Amino acid sequence: MKSKITFIENNICAPIGFYSSAIAAGIRKPGKLDLSLIYSQVPAVAAGVFTKNKIKAAPLALTKKNLKNGLLQAVIVNSGNANACTGKVGSIHAKQTIDKLALSLKIDSSLVAVSSTGVIGVIMPIDKIISHIPALCDGLAIDLHNQAAKAIMTTMLGFFTTDADIDHEVLQQALTRVTNESFNMISVDGDTSTNDMVLIMANKMAKNKPIKSLDSVDGKLFYEALLHLSIILSKKIAQDGEGATKLIEVVVSGAKSDKQAKKVAKAVVSSSLVKSAIFGNDANWGRIACAVGYADSHVNANKLKISLENLILFTDGVPLPFSEDEALQLLKQKNIAIHIDLGLGNAKSTAWGCDLSYDYIKINAAYRT
Amino acid sequence: MKSKITFIENNICAPIGFYSSAIAAGIRKPGKLDLSLIYSQVPAVAAGVFTKNKIKAAPLALTKKNLKNGLLQAVIVNSGNANACTGKVGSIHAKQTIDKLALSLKIDSSLVAVSSTGVIGVIMPIDKIISHIPALCDGLAIDLHNQAAKAIMTTMLGFFTTDADIDHEVLQQALTRVTNESFNMISVDGDTSTNDMVLIMANKMAKNKPIKSLDSVDGKLFYEALLHLSIILSKKIAQDGEGATKLIEVVVSGAKSDKQAKKVAKAVVSSSLVKSAIFGNDANWGRIACAVGYADSHVNANKLKISLENLILFTDGVPLPFSEDEALQLLKQKNIAIHIDLGLGNAKSTAWGCDLSYDYIKINAAYRT
Repeated sequence: MKSKITFIENNICAPIGFYSSAIAAGIRKPGKLDLSLIYSQVPAVAAGVFTKNKIKAAPLALTKKNLKNGLLQAVIVNSGNANACTGKVGSIHAKQTIDKLALSLKIDSSLVAVSSTGVIGVIMPIDKIISHIPALCDGLAIDLHNQAAKAIMTTMLGFFTTDADIDHEVLQQALTRVTNESFNMISVDGDTSTNDMVLIMANKMAKNKPIKSLDSVDGKLFYEALLHLSIILSKKIAQDGEGATKLIEVVVSGAKSDKQAKKVAKAVVSSSLVKSAIFGNDANWGRIACAVGYADSHVNANKLKISLENLILFTDGVPLPFSEDEALQLLKQKNIAIHIDLGLGNAKSTAWGCDLSYDYIKINAAYRT
Repeated sequence: MKSKITFIENNICAPIGFYSSAIAAGIRKPGKLDLSLIYSQVPAVAAGVFTKNKIKAAPLALTKKNLKNGLLQAVIVNSGNANACTGKVGSIHAKQTIDKLALSLKIDSSLVAVSSTGVIGVIMPIDKIISHIPALCDGLAIDLHNQAAKAIMTTMLGFFTTDADIDHEVLQQALTRVTNESFNMISVDGDTSTNDMVLIMANKMAKNKPIKSLDSVDGKLFYEALLHLSIILSKKIAQDGEGATKLIEVVVSGAKSDKQAKKVAKAVVSSSLVKSAIFGNDANWGRIACAVGYADSHVNANKLKISLENLILFTDGVPLPFSEDEALQLLKQKNIAIHIDLGLGNAKSTAWGCDLSYDYIKINAAYRT
């Protein structure tokens, strides 16, 4: 089936009828792009997934509410301020943003989604957003330089556009499933933000035969393409983690269940001890075994196998002698794959993360200042 | 009641009838103390708690087995090698250590506990241990310089001695409860080791009226004293975390349940984002709110209150303006207290951890080398 999909290097404006725009509104440092707009010529079928964090940023409730109709035409996103823990005034600001954008675009405000990322607990400089919306709308174009993407870079926000004709329920189902295999399987530091959001808009402009099920031929192709893109984006987010020098891929197989596989993969990729060993090119696989052991109460050391790429380090309950030099060469790569076979069943899962470097501390020790 | 307890500055040999010894056996770098012995003149009632990690080091199974009789007379502990993920040979090595020590001390091997800490997945240099046991036993004395403690410094191992006369079940109950409020409430990096163990020996040599219940007057005093000591040790472990420059205390109140309070306190104290902000003296309380939000699905931002020491930063769902300078002065201290009131009930819990510094990376990036 894979041969039926052609992957192209492009951006949010590749599908028919989508335009975007980005501007420096002064929310971040002067001159830094911090406000983004994605727009469809016509109302698009839309679906979304949101952070599991119980403390949610103000924009999430409004965007969820607007998604209930299953249609969106525009998404406005800012970086530099999360509009989280900002109380009622935060909700008012998010609503003002939606209303101003709807007015400028001359669309119904129920067709607008709003999203934010940045510092938590700081009141949004709403005047800067409101005053820049007209220019933001004026700038709508086919985005040649990924400006819209650059303006939203901080945390786990993801936006997809497609000109496919696909039923709303099928679109939501695809996005939810795909998210569980991609965005929900990445970790930079184990923290789950108050603002995470992934949206997809499908504006039907390709005029294909409508996709009514993910089990149909076209449904499967759509799912495969969306999963592929989500994994690419997820890896980029992990790779772009604060101070990251390497992408870590943890592939768990032989699990009793999908849930067990995911738990173990996430625990290993999130372990500060594993991450700092990889930063230091140290094949300290005992830390991987340790993370496996605290991730799940049904693992068994005697059935466990741990490999770095193709180099087996631990199997049948005992360490295998390995060449430290060979391990060092593998660890010096920019992409590190850790394979963990639990030896308990047939379920699999993959998680992505990054190493823990001095620069993680440097960046996060003075994020606000 | 507190007035009835006198706390003394001393060590494992303070109670009547206990002796200890330490030696450099060559497991760590030459000359570094790495083998410890704690010995009671007479068999002591004993209790233990062990890591929840499913992948347990070899010594744990043997020590658990010997604890079934409820009696111990000697504990031998090494650092430099965890004897974890070492398969059957690891168990044989742990058994050899017990047998050799029992022979040297002329006691039954069922009265010996063995414990290890250090690198995971490396076969124990057992000959070094066996050959040093006679000298280790010869060195038994009232430990004037905390040598036994120095020889075991790496991970979460804790050993208590008391000359109190206390029933075995009551002792186990006290240790389990106390551990849940102290050792289980600390986090250096969120990883739970394969080797964690806390043991207590009570040799009855004080000839007190036996403690038969924790609800008795003496039982309560015993519990209070043990809790106090456990919290002191727990704080020291957190403070001594790799690269730590500050001790962080997270006090959660207003929780619906003890479980919720513990979950939230542990999540906040384990958050890499919170820890690096504190290292950088950055009052980025939004990260605390974020960690509260992902820790538990029943928290409510509108009822949440977050303070740094006595400085309220967030309450009733909105940020309070605060003096950055005042916050900076508080953050520059060596002990940082974060107070979180969930506003949902009356349960409380406290967790301890440390900041995340450049030295954490430095130490853990090359732990084996």
